[in-house]
Amino acid sequence: MKAVRKMKSELGAELVTVDKPKIGSDDILVKVKATSICGTDVHIYKWDEWSQNRIKVPQTLGHEVAGEVVEVGEHCKRIKVGDYISAETHIYDPGDLTALLGQFHIGENMKILGVDCDGAFAEYFVVPEIVAWVNEKSIPPEFATVQEPLGNATYAVLGEDCDVAGKRMVIIGDGPIALFAIGVAKVSGITALFHIGKYDLNMEIGKKMGSDYQLYANKEDIKRVEFIKDHTDGFGVDIVLDMAGSPQALDEGFKMLRKGGRFTAFGVAAKSPCLIDYNNGIVFKGAQIHGISGRKIFDTWYRNRNFLASGLLDISPVITHLFSLEDYEKGFNEMMTRPRKSAKIILFPDEKELEQAKQRMKK
Amino acid sequence: MKAVRKMKSELGAELVTVDKPKIGSDDILVKVKATSICGTDVHIYKWDEWSQNRIKVPQTLGHEVAGEVVEVGEHCKRIKVGDYISAETHIYDPGDLTALLGQFHIGENMKILGVDCDGAFAEYFVVPEIVAWVNEKSIPPEFATVQEPLGNATYAVLGEDCDVAGKRMVIIGDGPIALFAIGVAKVSGITALFHIGKYDLNMEIGKKMGSDYQLYANKEDIKRVEFIKDHTDGFGVDIVLDMAGSPQALDEGFKMLRKGGRFTAFGVAAKSPCLIDYNNGIVFKGAQIHGISGRKIFDTWYRNRNFLASGLLDISPVITHLFSLEDYEKGFNEMMTRPRKSAKIILFPDEKELEQAKQRMKK
Amino acid sequence: MKAVRKMKSELGAELVTVDKPKIGSDDILVKVKATSICGTDVHIYKWDEWSQNRIKVPQTLGHEVAGEVVEVGEHCKRIKVGDYISAETHIYDPGDLTALLGQFHIGENMKILGVDCDGAFAEYFVVPEIVAWVNEKSIPPEFATVQEPLGNATYAVLGEDCDVAGKRMVIIGDGPIALFAIGVAKVSGITALFHIGKYDLNMEIGKKMGSDYQLYANKEDIKRVEFIKDHTDGFGVDIVLDMAGSPQALDEGFKMLRKGGRFTAFGVAAKSPCLIDYNNGIVFKGAQIHGISGRKIFDTWYRNRNFLASGLLDISPVITHLFSLEDYEKGFNEMMTRPRKSAKIILFPDEKELEQAKQRMKK
Amino acid sequence: MKAVRKMKSELGAELVTVDKPKIGSDDILVKVKATSICGTDVHIYKWDEWSQNRIKVPQTLGHEVAGEVVEVGEHCKRIKVGDYISAETHIYDPGDLTALLGQFHIGENMKILGVDCDGAFAEYFVVPEIVAWVNEKSIPPEFATVQEPLGNATYAVLGEDCDVAGKRMVIIGDGPIALFAIGVAKVSGITALFHIGKYDLNMEIGKKMGSDYQLYANKEDIKRVEFIKDHTDGFGVDIVLDMAGSPQALDEGFKMLRKGGRFTAFGVAAKSPCLIDYNNGIVFKGAQIHGISGRKIFDTWYRNRNFLASGLLDISPVITHLFSLEDYEKGFNEMMTRPRKSAKIILFPDEKELEQAKQRMKK
Repeated sequence: MKAVRKMKSELGAELVTVDKPKIGSDDILVKVKATSICGTDVHIYKWDEWSQNRIKVPQTLGHEVAGEVVEVGEHCKRIKVGDYISAETHIYDPGDLTALLGQFHIGENMKILGVDCDGAFAEYFVVPEIVAWVNEKSIPPEFATVQEPLGNATYAVLGEDCDVAGKRMVIIGDGPIALFAIGVAKVSGITALFHIGKYDLNMEIGKKMGSDYQLYANKEDIKRVEFIKDHTDGFGVDIVLDMAGSPQALDEGFKMLRKGGRFTAFGVAAKSPCLIDYNNGIVFKGAQIHGISGRKIFDTWYRNRNFLASGLLDISPVITHLFSLEDYEKGFNEMMTRPRKSAKIILFPDEKELEQAKQRMKK
Repeated sequence: MKAVRKMKSELGAELVTVDKPKIGSDDILVKVKATSICGTDVHIYKWDEWSQNRIKVPQTLGHEVAGEVVEVGEHCKRIKVGDYISAETHIYDPGDLTALLGQFHIGENMKILGVDCDGAFAEYFVVPEIVAWVNEKSIPPEFATVQEPLGNATYAVLGEDCDVAGKRMVIIGDGPIALFAIGVAKVSGITALFHIGKYDLNMEIGKKMGSDYQLYANKEDIKRVEFIKDHTDGFGVDIVLDMAGSPQALDEGFKMLRKGGRFTAFGVAAKSPCLIDYNNGIVFKGAQIHGISGRKIFDTWYRNRNFLASGLLDISPVITHLFSLEDYEKGFNEMMTRPRKSAKIILFPDEKELEQAKQRMKK
Repeated sequence: MKAVRKMKSELGAELVTVDKPKIGSDDILVKVKATSICGTDVHIYKWDEWSQNRIKVPQTLGHEVAGEVVEVGEHCKRIKVGDYISAETHIYDPGDLTALLGQFHIGENMKILGVDCDGAFAEYFVVPEIVAWVNEKSIPPEFATVQEPLGNATYAVLGEDCDVAGKRMVIIGDGPIALFAIGVAKVSGITALFHIGKYDLNMEIGKKMGSDYQLYANKEDIKRVEFIKDHTDGFGVDIVLDMAGSPQALDEGFKMLRKGGRFTAFGVAAKSPCLIDYNNGIVFKGAQIHGISGRKIFDTWYRNRNFLASGLLDISPVITHLFSLEDYEKGFNEMMTRPRKSAKIILFPDEKELEQAKQRMKK
Repeated sequence: MKAVRKMKSELGAELVTVDKPKIGSDDILVKVKATSICGTDVHIYKWDEWSQNRIKVPQTLGHEVAGEVVEVGEHCKRIKVGDYISAETHIYDPGDLTALLGQFHIGENMKILGVDCDGAFAEYFVVPEIVAWVNEKSIPPEFATVQEPLGNATYAVLGEDCDVAGKRMVIIGDGPIALFAIGVAKVSGITALFHIGKYDLNMEIGKKMGSDYQLYANKEDIKRVEFIKDHTDGFGVDIVLDMAGSPQALDEGFKMLRKGGRFTAFGVAAKSPCLIDYNNGIVFKGAQIHGISGRKIFDTWYRNRNFLASGLLDISPVITHLFSLEDYEKGFNEMMTRPRKSAKIILFPDEKELEQAKQRMKK
């Protein structure tokens, strides 16, 4: 079968032919309908410092995916051949204390699909049954594949308490997850959404996803904190969702938050430890900080299934490119272009699936 | 001034001229812009058993209201002359344990505006400053006056935990509060809203407010519980919101709820104690029942202000009639007609306000 | 091996010799160190209506247990031979919506150990790995075996929100779970614990477990509701935990609760539907009712492990009898005696374990 | 009357005779029975940079207090002459958004008793009725006066979710609030309490309050993080409560926390912004950080009243010195001694009250 694999310890990846993978008794084998490129894939493609320490070559890239189950291990109970599934990429260890307590998405011994084992940029991939999620058939593959990053967005928006309706929110960042988060926030009842980003295309997509105010992070003449206080009776917003992790975001983010508000820490800081205004931003502010990594398994998946299958949430503005899997390099090049000219890029191993997706996206 | 008052212990109410009320040092005097008829007003108008035991004549009716502050008591701190306000009708005793713990809307020694003291069906009314809520100027009086029942709806939808986004809900009942609740639920991220009611007009308004499925409570041929299970993978909905209180509602409501779901008990049972399937509906189901009376002070008001001022929530379909205060009898007659031919009815003491509202509602 | 089994559709059970059970690839085989008699076992022993409809003979009774793992199925990952374990008896179906959402203890397709399959009143028993809990070695078998009912108590006391410290509580009922609940409530910060029960021995054990006030349910001269209001500034308690399910408990329980309080519905009503004062007890009271069945998996187990291993919670007063498994009939007879002369009864298949337990309990 | 006042912009304070203060219509006048020295008082006494910017001389120090109401303003409703009260020191502005939403303890326009107005180191003091809390008569003045810092402890231990029973906790710091927190944590069901502090006396008091493990922060040979991981199955504790704010505390504190745990940020950092391991400590850890300032009004007071009046929580080990108000300088000197030789110091304006307290503390 075809697979996009990291073959050597250097920039790039190769389209190669490999054997169809074999499954263990707890695994399922999935024929890929659509897969999508994540920022993590770009890190591995670029072969940055993090990748060099974490990834063992050769390895198939990719972890956002939707496909059809073609084989199940002998001990699988929940998933059946023919199921249309996506996969949670946080493959938890059931013996982790977090897993025993129901916090499956974080753990001491967790593995990540496409990072610690072969991924889904291929015609087929293997994943343990415990992280498979059965998709509603009405959700097309180009939407089903992005439920993993959409799940990040939903968990980040809802936080630990899911209390958002009728509140006001700042979202900082303009990558695909931030753009998804705008959509989730708006359909969840955020009444004023202030979006802070850098790139014209993405600010525009954010607007289509429902942002009420667009503030550029990289324009000197805008007083962002003042603007937000002016539009919130002087108090600041109820919730700040940081998806950038930049020093500017962490500085301004806490200032935009009202006392007693919630700050979602999703963006990864380029350098950590980093400077935080601990006293004014957290202690005296009586703030709640929710560190968010991954997605609640499967609480977030359930909500997103409902959002997408009902049509309440339309994520199509975020999906900017559909490519054949063979054109993966085009995809990576688009992802690395700055200023950004893309948001979410979907790859299809099967040309027919690509054509059908193109037809659907045209409407 | 003009006021609609219960003068005698019998059906009806009278439009009379009375002195403008005087305020105490903790009160505010408000010139009424709009006021609206609640089911409680109808109970008092009809002079039913509850009213006969609770109301002391003569008394001015009405408690849903929006108006301008024209005088404030010498100890008022928060509210100023000229403020455009609405009033929370649950006038709490600050010494109640519930008030000390922040649950202001319920208490042992609470008074209700228009029930335990003169209300707002008049040119002017008096209310303690502690329950006044300053409205956003952009919210028109015909919307601002219904924030009290809208607050019931919002609190009932969000419950104690405010966890609704991406979930599925049944709403039983088709009075104005149920119709508001449909709108609140949909803008808060409910992806499938099953509405159960009786009257064509109200089912139609429910649809305009966003209900996804309309099921008649009074048609024999519909298997409501089965329908809902069929549309929720056999499990039932995450949340049931009962606003009817009928034996049928309480029986079916618990059956429609999935295990581990939330049941909001808002509707008042005609007779209580009443039969509840305690074992299957609550204990074995692992259900959470949230008894809801009133609105969180002022948490609910804040969210509704945001919903209305942002335009995210459009409540105009629920407002079916605008009358002059002098036409209050028309209003009560509409309210009492069955099958229902009205939802929310607004009264205006000032003809100019009535005309402006009519203009706005036309758009 | 020896096993206490229901052999015929009639009262009683028999000690028989059967083959050691065989395990499937996801199961573990456990050598029983201690097992204890639950009210459910008594129902099956008595062969009441519920048992006749649910149980298929022949079947081994018992589900409260502690033992050592002697064999694990080939696909077991978490549990190892030699582990000292207890078992969660709610064997969930991983495909239930509740299981997908982390509410493992309730579900449409759940099986109960010792009810829907052979139980633990035997030298060995089999259970799926997914419900096995590894015990701390320092917790003796006579404590470890009762962690299942202790888990009921802990979940019922903590409810869904776990907010109990510094609050006041009523516990109605005097079976072993209610007595455990008293202990859990007191070590969790309940400052005033009102215990309502019937039998002298159990009221006395409740006192040892920490109850602050003992009120008899079956004495006419005590005005229980008034007593509790008098001792809570006239407001009632913050939390009522019903473990009786009787009409009197459901009537008085809601009256003892303060407005805005929490009512834990754990006791099963003898007849359901039953009369509940829905309006005054739930709606107008703004009460939260938490229906509790089972125990959070494994959140409750984690807390109880901590409670027991640290010695913070001493449950020894509740354990009234230690018997050899062969003396199971003595155990059942004690359980059925009224007025109650026992609380928790432990059975030991191995005489040496029994002797050691007797030595420990003497101290 | 006698009062301890800051008369000049320099170190120290003076015992002077001033007029008894006059009350406004919303205030109460209180005859002081006991008052206690807070770290904030020491800052003002020392006249550090913060004090120089915040305090206007002359001003009476002190804000922890218990006393009897001798006069009430004409608009007071809840408090009566003769009431035995303590005072919440966060005098909120009812117009703050936080106050409208029930988060009274933080706000944009809040005033602090003894910081922004005259305090309680005097025979009489004045405070607005809205922050007065009526004490249970059975709580002696030397306990009632410290309910303000005890409230810090309780809020910090319970956090926003109050979920502590059956969990494991680290408390960093050994000032009086940290010592109170140990006691609150233990009576609230913390099963393993790791206390990290510096001074022998305070570590010893912590042990009396219930700490299970004592780890010195200032000893090089102890590997604190490793120790805690070793005692928590390698995962870390469920909750870390930082009351130190030092770089070491903020570094180690996050490392001691298990994934998905809660970190209470109570200690104020000496310098802010400061370095935080944002990625590993918050984002990847899926941690919840609760910034805590003040105490929930009056939720925390209610719980502490219950804790103290029931005798469940004994705070006497923390109270190390009882002085006459005239000996305030001894008190300040004790407070400033390092290594610490004191924890909580109580001052009595009335010699008789001092004598009675001494008698009670002897027992």
